[in-house]
Amino acid sequence: MSETNFDVIVLGGGPGGYIAAERLGHAKKKVLLIEAEALGGTCLNVGCIPTKALLGAAKTYDHARHAGAQGVHAPDITVDWAEMQAWKAKTVSTLVGGVGAAEKKAGVTVVKGHGRFDGPGRVTVGEETYSARHVILATGSVPVMPPIPGAADNPAVVDSTGLLAIEEIPARLAVIGGGVIGLEFASLFAMLGSEVTVIEMLPEIVPFMDDDLAAQLRKGLADVSFQLESRVTAIDGGVVRYSAKDGSEQSVEAEVVLMAVGRRPAVQGWGAENTGLEHSGKGVVVDERMRTNLPNVWAVGDVTGRSLLAHAAYRMGEIAAANILDPDAHLRGERMRWNTIPWAVYSNPEAAGIGATESQARAEGRAVGTVTVPGYLSGRFVAEAGVKAPGACKLVYDSTTGQVLGVNVLGTYASETIWGASVVLETELSIHDLRQVVYPHPTVSELIREAAWAAQV
Amino acid sequence: MSETNFDVIVLGGGPGGYIAAERLGHAKKKVLLIEAEALGGTCLNVGCIPTKALLGAAKTYDHARHAGAQGVHAPDITVDWAEMQAWKAKTVSTLVGGVGAAEKKAGVTVVKGHGRFDGPGRVTVGEETYSARHVILATGSVPVMPPIPGAADNPAVVDSTGLLAIEEIPARLAVIGGGVIGLEFASLFAMLGSEVTVIEMLPEIVPFMDDDLAAQLRKGLADVSFQLESRVTAIDGGVVRYSAKDGSEQSVEAEVVLMAVGRRPAVQGWGAENTGLEHSGKGVVVDERMRTNLPNVWAVGDVTGRSLLAHAAYRMGEIAAANILDPDAHLRGERMRWNTIPWAVYSNPEAAGIGATESQARAEGRAVGTVTVPGYLSGRFVAEAGVKAPGACKLVYDSTTGQVLGVNVLGTYASETIWGASVVLETELSIHDLRQVVYPHPTVSELIREAAWAAQV
Repeated sequence: MSETNFDVIVLGGGPGGYIAAERLGHAKKKVLLIEAEALGGTCLNVGCIPTKALLGAAKTYDHARHAGAQGVHAPDITVDWAEMQAWKAKTVSTLVGGVGAAEKKAGVTVVKGHGRFDGPGRVTVGEETYSARHVILATGSVPVMPPIPGAADNPAVVDSTGLLAIEEIPARLAVIGGGVIGLEFASLFAMLGSEVTVIEMLPEIVPFMDDDLAAQLRKGLADVSFQLESRVTAIDGGVVRYSAKDGSEQSVEAEVVLMAVGRRPAVQGWGAENTGLEHSGKGVVVDERMRTNLPNVWAVGDVTGRSLLAHAAYRMGEIAAANILDPDAHLRGERMRWNTIPWAVYSNPEAAGIGATESQARAEGRAVGTVTVPGYLSGRFVAEAGVKAPGACKLVYDSTTGQVLGVNVLGTYASETIWGASVVLETELSIHDLRQVVYPHPTVSELIREAAWAAQV
Repeated sequence: MSETNFDVIVLGGGPGGYIAAERLGHAKKKVLLIEAEALGGTCLNVGCIPTKALLGAAKTYDHARHAGAQGVHAPDITVDWAEMQAWKAKTVSTLVGGVGAAEKKAGVTVVKGHGRFDGPGRVTVGEETYSARHVILATGSVPVMPPIPGAADNPAVVDSTGLLAIEEIPARLAVIGGGVIGLEFASLFAMLGSEVTVIEMLPEIVPFMDDDLAAQLRKGLADVSFQLESRVTAIDGGVVRYSAKDGSEQSVEAEVVLMAVGRRPAVQGWGAENTGLEHSGKGVVVDERMRTNLPNVWAVGDVTGRSLLAHAAYRMGEIAAANILDPDAHLRGERMRWNTIPWAVYSNPEAAGIGATESQARAEGRAVGTVTVPGYLSGRFVAEAGVKAPGACKLVYDSTTGQVLGVNVLGTYASETIWGASVVLETELSIHDLRQVVYPHPTVSELIREAAWAAQV
């Protein structure tokens, strides 16, 4: 008979769940990790990773096609979608195997099946009931499918999972939603030759990005057509009908329509209803230590609805693990600081950011200073992309103390440079402190340096 | 009659000099910047920037040629050296113009000419003598040409400036010296199809990199042949003769031979000899505020011989400027911290690092811990480059306190991620602190996170 009593049960094997299990396992806790599908969750199987495998190839293709001024000519370059898909599949299976190996190394017991949370200390999988002192809920999120007439059961309409699996590059792609997911797919297929239209309800794309830089990102996605302040009213086969900004009724036709209006916490279907677990319309309610209202029941990742990003889930998983291991862990910084979670859009050009936007900082009632510098202030940016390529860095800071509150970057390498800004925000550096930091020259990361020196403090 | 009396005279318009001038100008000082050639110095005109313009194009070419597994095929891709050179020249002229514009904006007077330092407060250019309260010496460095028989007046032998200007891609290139300059050119021409041999006297390339990661970088440069522990004895036309590791006499033949054994501070030819200015064999002696032994005479950049990197020069220039503006500036951190200067090699693959190597940290007598993780622990690394691509991150830390002492990274984006490690070292974070930092997922920068968690602290 297999063991059914554990120190910790983790329900869900995505980034939040598997990292929590791994950390606890390495700390010698007896951990059970329950996952109905492949380890790695949405991120690894149908999210962050497969999109990056495809975007990487598409960027290589795109860069080679646009390097004529630099002396590189590839008039006959081709891209093969089936091979891209094979590369993607291989990437995912390699990394899923890596997560499995990491759990094994940490001594975590992994059970494949659909877990049901029966209350503090109890989770059922099929006929088997497992018990543990602690339960970590990490059930993730699902794509939102808004009730647009004609969207349901329409073979032309896909969510991100469906679009990752299509069999050929569509001649035309309509994307409903200008957030991260919508933009990454828009950029991917635009690079591959699709005619792409993004329809967004709000006045600007990427709501957590500073508006002015988001507008620059939008213009940088020159091959994508954007319809802002536009509300989709119906979908008829591949025809997407929408009320445009000027109030007129418009439509766009495409072979494939991506529904990318967001994701919602997966709070149903695993028993939360009957346990008294508190959840708002936005997910399972947690405090800064990832505790729910139930004793020894924790929730991490997308199911909390607080930040639907894989790396936020990692951090939440680590915080839950740390506080399970040591009730005083929060006193050593093991608590969630929502302002130090970066984000990135892996489109071409890339964008990334962290902390408060200008408008958020103002809404908090602070004395706010901002500074924005263009990409061409970086020598490497000019050397590799040219002076006219989309690029910028914006800093938001407290104009009284100089403390850096937010960083937004647009352009090459943005996703890879932004972690340094995480350290800046974590350590609460001021613009004055930031000016003393040394960057290798020439790098695009130096745009942050240029911005710090251009700030009027 | 033009003005000859200034607050500060800066002798040399490279990174250290032009940044010092700019910062002082913005602080309303009356500044004279003297430069004999184009503004920007070695870095901008014949160093960091032109190499990056060429390396950027070469990487685009190389990536497209090796993306077959990802579905990208470019069998007929070509690269045109003349066009690459034109792109390089355009990049340099644009950025030189940018430096000129920045000086103008800062109100700095720029005089073109060969300046001679006559002592504290006095610099002569041709017939004109200028005076100022402060003088900043920023005369840079020059390539070392070792007295190898057959090297002088040999048209096949070039320094980095010469190699940047060659008219065609050599079929064979021999590189004497496996430091940053040698490696960047070796990688560049290997990507462009040259048969490249690097001959290095020491047991490993890139002396300031951790030996084990340097070995991985060397293996990652798979198309380059390396001869380590080999001493060049003579050059005969394009034939480079050397004593190999095993003591045997060997030779390699090439159309072009790059002499890249290092650079030395330019301490001669501008008057230092007659002023009592203290300089060791390694450059003008400065303290942590960039003060020389002479009153109100400062030295910054390569001429100090302390760190021959453009960004180290920037920082030195800023420190001199800050301490000229405020004698207490060093109390606010405006002093040189040599351990927080990162470095980068922009080869393919890239490498970067900061702080102490393992052997340096041990030599300081510390209790040292280290951890190294492979590139394939990063999902993006695998998604874009594959599991077998060269990549790694090594952390060196104080095993008593956990303080991070050094970071080395190898692989994609290394040069752009390392600035975050500058912040880590500046703020003296421990491994425990570093574990709380959030990186966007998936990024290659997450290798630093993986290393922090893998450390045994």
